[in-house]
Amino acid sequence: MAVYTEVGDEELASFIASYDLGDLLSFKGIAEGVENTNYIVHTSKGPFILTLYERRVEAADLPFYLGLMEHLAEHGVTCPTPVRDAHGKNLSRISGRPAALVTFLEGFWVRRPTAAHCAAVGRALAELHLGGEGFGLRRSNALGLAGWRPLYERFADRAGEIAPDLARLIEEELAFLQENWPQGLPDGVIHADLFPDNVFFIGDRLSGLIDFYFACNDALAYDIAVSLNAWCFEKDMSFNITKGQAFLRGYEDVRPLSAREREAMPLLARGAAMRFLLTRAYDWLNTPKDALVSPKNPMEYVRRLRFHQGVRSIAEYGLNGMAK
Amino acid sequence: MAVYTEVGDEELASFIASYDLGDLLSFKGIAEGVENTNYIVHTSKGPFILTLYERRVEAADLPFYLGLMEHLAEHGVTCPTPVRDAHGKNLSRISGRPAALVTFLEGFWVRRPTAAHCAAVGRALAELHLGGEGFGLRRSNALGLAGWRPLYERFADRAGEIAPDLARLIEEELAFLQENWPQGLPDGVIHADLFPDNVFFIGDRLSGLIDFYFACNDALAYDIAVSLNAWCFEKDMSFNITKGQAFLRGYEDVRPLSAREREAMPLLARGAAMRFLLTRAYDWLNTPKDALVSPKNPMEYVRRLRFHQGVRSIAEYGLNGMAK
Repeated sequence: MAVYTEVGDEELASFIASYDLGDLLSFKGIAEGVENTNYIVHTSKGPFILTLYERRVEAADLPFYLGLMEHLAEHGVTCPTPVRDAHGKNLSRISGRPAALVTFLEGFWVRRPTAAHCAAVGRALAELHLGGEGFGLRRSNALGLAGWRPLYERFADRAGEIAPDLARLIEEELAFLQENWPQGLPDGVIHADLFPDNVFFIGDRLSGLIDFYFACNDALAYDIAVSLNAWCFEKDMSFNITKGQAFLRGYEDVRPLSAREREAMPLLARGAAMRFLLTRAYDWLNTPKDALVSPKNPMEYVRRLRFHQGVRSIAEYGLNGMAK
Repeated sequence: MAVYTEVGDEELASFIASYDLGDLLSFKGIAEGVENTNYIVHTSKGPFILTLYERRVEAADLPFYLGLMEHLAEHGVTCPTPVRDAHGKNLSRISGRPAALVTFLEGFWVRRPTAAHCAAVGRALAELHLGGEGFGLRRSNALGLAGWRPLYERFADRAGEIAPDLARLIEEELAFLQENWPQGLPDGVIHADLFPDNVFFIGDRLSGLIDFYFACNDALAYDIAVSLNAWCFEKDMSFNITKGQAFLRGYEDVRPLSAREREAMPLLARGAAMRFLLTRAYDWLNTPKDALVSPKNPMEYVRRLRFHQGVRSIAEYGLNGMAK
């Protein structure tokens, strides 16, 4: 939520001159993005977003992220599209940082999503899964099953600072997930972080998806499980089955789930809750008190996880009827 | 440099609906403005800036600032122009704060101004002084002569933390200024803070002036003195007479100075240096270490002040020849 790297007027003007975008008209740092520095840049060709990648982003992954956004945009998914410079490159440097210029996407995220929003997000996620087919680069999911235990071990000795029984809960759940994690589900490119702040709407119309910086290759149904966690719980941590139904039906309108994907959903949802529980717990224990961004409460994911532990079938998330 | 107040999507959509600006398309908090929260807002009618006035701005002064921007825009000064809502009001409220929507001004501030930039700023300042004629509201200069001693007294006992001889310098200079301050100069609306970050350019063309939140009624020539301090010193604190000449000639192309204004310039420049020395010294001593905005070094104004103390006539700022 901050401008970590200041860009000067002369260096930005010469940066913009390396693109076919006309003259630089204005630029303003925006208070968005936890990891990176972002500017709104106006040129005579329109508005763009300039992103400077800060240290927390692996530079080696940038061709994957930028290539994916370009691939998705070419395949009907509305998202910020990287602009190529005069040398045909979509990745450049400014102010000592890797940087990319992408098209400006109108829309804004919805603080109180309704079932109608969830239905639109379900459709968009399925379109993303289909649109990602044929993308040539791969990136493994660093925050998938294999990454959870090492991440937990980085704060295991301090888990009790969050809640007395948290260590036992995580250890038992990790053991269960490692024993039972579904294998061989249809895989492909997943967003892996499709939370409400990464989906833009204009009124009730979904205008596009943003923030592909967790995207990777993994089971497509795991992405659905992330979204069920992200979109379908109320502030009191109760699961809203109307939203779950809307989301899953929206998804299946575009890409029907197989019987195995349906069966796996409660387990995948447990795994997705574990993934956000672990990163939130780590951030909770490791964010300096005076940081610009306050860490989010990990216990919200303990409550989601407990809900999923009691779920026996995808019907409890709102999807009835036979798999197609 | 921060978003102090978060605005939600639903409240902003209903706020925008009270204007004749079409639909809300997007909004992003921007990292600009030390005192206020600013958002870039796109509607179907174009881009706008939404400003939420935080506690440091006197709400009673807002009609002056907004009325002035409107008056200036009507009189040929390019600046952000307040938009009136369906009830004809240019001041509203959102998220518990007074708020105004103004037009988006293209351009960006120049980090390394040249003499050509200074000439353009001189012209623009004179145009602002002429454009302000006939504006019906008044606001006295809270940071003018009468305000300096009370401000100094708020940190006098700690001035030695900045430099051992600072208290003596300020006390002697304040006594001198109070004794000798020029009276009866032509007055009117002044910007009072026309620093490089408040003047936008596109290339070499000045595209407009921003940030009228120190504007007030005072001697017009005092505003010139502020600008000589703000625009014509190099990083090593040497005065660049080429820039001074360009600025003053640019100003006089639009509004020639009277003989009395010319004579008063060295004194006014001392006063302007004192004003920024005092506010910077106060901020230096009173900004928490973990604040988002780092305080600027007050000693830069001690060095400017010492320069002005040695100036005997406006010729040393670059203006030769007879007054018109």
